[in-house]
Amino acid sequence: MKKVLVTGFEPFGGEPVNPALEAVKLLNGKQIASYEIISRSLPVARGRCIASIVEQIAEFDPELVLAVGQAGGHMEITVERVAINVDDFRIKDNDGNQPVDEPIVADGPVAYWSTLPIKAMVDKLRAGNVPARVSNTAGTFVCNHLFYGLMHALACEGNKRRGGFIHIPYLPEQAARITGQPSMALETIVRGLELALAAALTTTQDTKITGGTIC
Amino acid sequence: MKKVLVTGFEPFGGEPVNPALEAVKLLNGKQIASYEIISRSLPVARGRCIASIVEQIAEFDPELVLAVGQAGGHMEITVERVAINVDDFRIKDNDGNQPVDEPIVADGPVAYWSTLPIKAMVDKLRAGNVPARVSNTAGTFVCNHLFYGLMHALACEGNKRRGGFIHIPYLPEQAARITGQPSMALETIVRGLELALAAALTTTQDTKITGGTIC
Amino acid sequence: MKKVLVTGFEPFGGEPVNPALEAVKLLNGKQIASYEIISRSLPVARGRCIASIVEQIAEFDPELVLAVGQAGGHMEITVERVAINVDDFRIKDNDGNQPVDEPIVADGPVAYWSTLPIKAMVDKLRAGNVPARVSNTAGTFVCNHLFYGLMHALACEGNKRRGGFIHIPYLPEQAARITGQPSMALETIVRGLELALAAALTTTQDTKITGGTIC
Amino acid sequence: MKKVLVTGFEPFGGEPVNPALEAVKLLNGKQIASYEIISRSLPVARGRCIASIVEQIAEFDPELVLAVGQAGGHMEITVERVAINVDDFRIKDNDGNQPVDEPIVADGPVAYWSTLPIKAMVDKLRAGNVPARVSNTAGTFVCNHLFYGLMHALACEGNKRRGGFIHIPYLPEQAARITGQPSMALETIVRGLELALAAALTTTQDTKITGGTIC
Repeated sequence: MKKVLVTGFEPFGGEPVNPALEAVKLLNGKQIASYEIISRSLPVARGRCIASIVEQIAEFDPELVLAVGQAGGHMEITVERVAINVDDFRIKDNDGNQPVDEPIVADGPVAYWSTLPIKAMVDKLRAGNVPARVSNTAGTFVCNHLFYGLMHALACEGNKRRGGFIHIPYLPEQAARITGQPSMALETIVRGLELALAAALTTTQDTKITGGTIC
Repeated sequence: MKKVLVTGFEPFGGEPVNPALEAVKLLNGKQIASYEIISRSLPVARGRCIASIVEQIAEFDPELVLAVGQAGGHMEITVERVAINVDDFRIKDNDGNQPVDEPIVADGPVAYWSTLPIKAMVDKLRAGNVPARVSNTAGTFVCNHLFYGLMHALACEGNKRRGGFIHIPYLPEQAARITGQPSMALETIVRGLELALAAALTTTQDTKITGGTIC
Repeated sequence: MKKVLVTGFEPFGGEPVNPALEAVKLLNGKQIASYEIISRSLPVARGRCIASIVEQIAEFDPELVLAVGQAGGHMEITVERVAINVDDFRIKDNDGNQPVDEPIVADGPVAYWSTLPIKAMVDKLRAGNVPARVSNTAGTFVCNHLFYGLMHALACEGNKRRGGFIHIPYLPEQAARITGQPSMALETIVRGLELALAAALTTTQDTKITGGTIC
Repeated sequence: MKKVLVTGFEPFGGEPVNPALEAVKLLNGKQIASYEIISRSLPVARGRCIASIVEQIAEFDPELVLAVGQAGGHMEITVERVAINVDDFRIKDNDGNQPVDEPIVADGPVAYWSTLPIKAMVDKLRAGNVPARVSNTAGTFVCNHLFYGLMHALACEGNKRRGGFIHIPYLPEQAARITGQPSMALETIVRGLELALAAALTTTQDTKITGGTIC
């Protein structure tokens, strides 16, 4: 069976859990649109997270790769449009790195687009009662780092597989502790990821519906 | 068995559902801390909602009354501290009323405190992984109207039963449609209401933990 | 000439300035609607701030008293509707007090309304290009403490003078330091306070325009 | 004297003013760091705004070009890091265009970096008491369209001049009308732009201070 690789990060920033890891674990072994989902964890570490996803791609030879990360403060599932070639870490990663304005790939292009149908994915989530939107920035921390590294690796292969990134909100258990933050139930997140994968796997030409922002 | 009355409002403001009604329906007939939960719906209508809850109190003779309402834009379950004696409706209620700066009870006091242990309730929700906080304003629409009318009715009886109000976020299905809004899964809301009721029913002296705001 | 007393708080919470104090200082000695403005500072201290404003009222015998406080996080000038009889301090005041759920005035009423025409004031500010709204909670810290104490003192005199409270945003110099916060230029704040005082001094019957919130 | 071109957009989205245009008008003819500031307006129109700025560059031969746009909802001056090659208009521009997911420059790179020292600029604004931050998305409307078109034109010339984009908040007069929005006084905005230009004109190697976001 054809495969899809879905990755989630380990906890970071002092949090005991990462909703991305919790969610992708529950997808492991599932079948969506006749693809087998393989989910794996990644370290929140500059460089190492890219090396790890590249190894996993080599191991599983997936048709599509979806990386998932925690976005504290977000209230919806956000499907990322673009990864930019810069590390500007507001906090340290789990290896203690805190680069400021350094390229992820020396001499790499300024940015890569997601090669997933982001509008169709958002549309499918909303139709399935899961709050979602397109995001035009994945930040400048490890999530963007991985997203850029992934898209660079896929581009270097000739884009024979598609890839992209999704940010998800805190879990209720995190928001109950941190307070003053939006959250989303694990069940809603998992359902959202399944819908997003279903849309990505069955859509070849993305839908023309606006997901833009004024500023 | 001793009883608790829990009310939820009908949909309003153009929404096809009201999470408060959906949540309280699921509590009907449950038993919490050896109390039977009776849940009923209320019209989003000035005057009529108070008349209705007063009738239900007469019918069921509950020891405690908890009214629940939808708070679009809230990201946590909010336990209300105080009801104020004013109607100032930004939109029309379901009967077409839109009073501005009119008292709810002529010659009534400016405000009533909730007689529920709001800090213990918030504490219990957070400990149970449900995002929650104290709120110091229930607005000036039908939710505050009902809350004030309820506390006035209970005060007129000599406060032999306790009462209060809880606001809950949109459901994911609403936030998926409205977009740009926080939400909470129905399961999380229901669990939150159960925890809040358990705390209210088993706490006589409220906990001294801050739930204050600077401004 | 008839007098108006306008008070501003000293800095608190680690801030080197308080925009309320900076703004009211600039109003001292001005004349608005044929009233002389007298502005004074108050300590951010439970009990002492009320004692101080009561002394100033005795000294100046003003027709109207407006207390002004900093509201970090607010983006508009907010005219407060109601003061509630509770101290629930999330941080310590400048005397080190941090009461939780204690009454401001033992056996005082639950709340007092502002006796200023809050709608006419907001309307005048907006017409004068100053962002403003009604607020239905003044928090539970020293601002609400003073507001309640002031309205209680005025009520004990038989409400022969009117009084109320206005919250104002951070100054740009504070927001430049704290980051991620809205602010308002001192000139805009001062103009707003002048417009608010002009509206309060010339309006006897408040305007019927909505300033309500749903929740 | 060496020249700097500063552009501001005409009003759009139903607003009668555009703070960017108001602010840049006040800079016209000023001298900053021994450069003459020339400010010009641009139409809020896909294609035409780029054609216009390219003509102005040809006419004035500036050393540096700074484009300025209104960012409704922003509370700080935001110095943009990156322009992306996509038009995804949530509303129509002033010519009635509403492209969805179309490239700005066919076969252009995915994105261009600002060639201004964005960290030094933010640092200078904050030190000068003007709230500011780096932004990692300029949206997908006409502001990003112009920013991308400008950077593409400058790149095609071999980057012999530097260029970038700054977003500014609503004016108080706009926020007073729209309500519920942060704003910034015109004087603060103008001072901020002067500081930003001074930093840009005197900094060759950008400062290494974080301006990153987690997500």
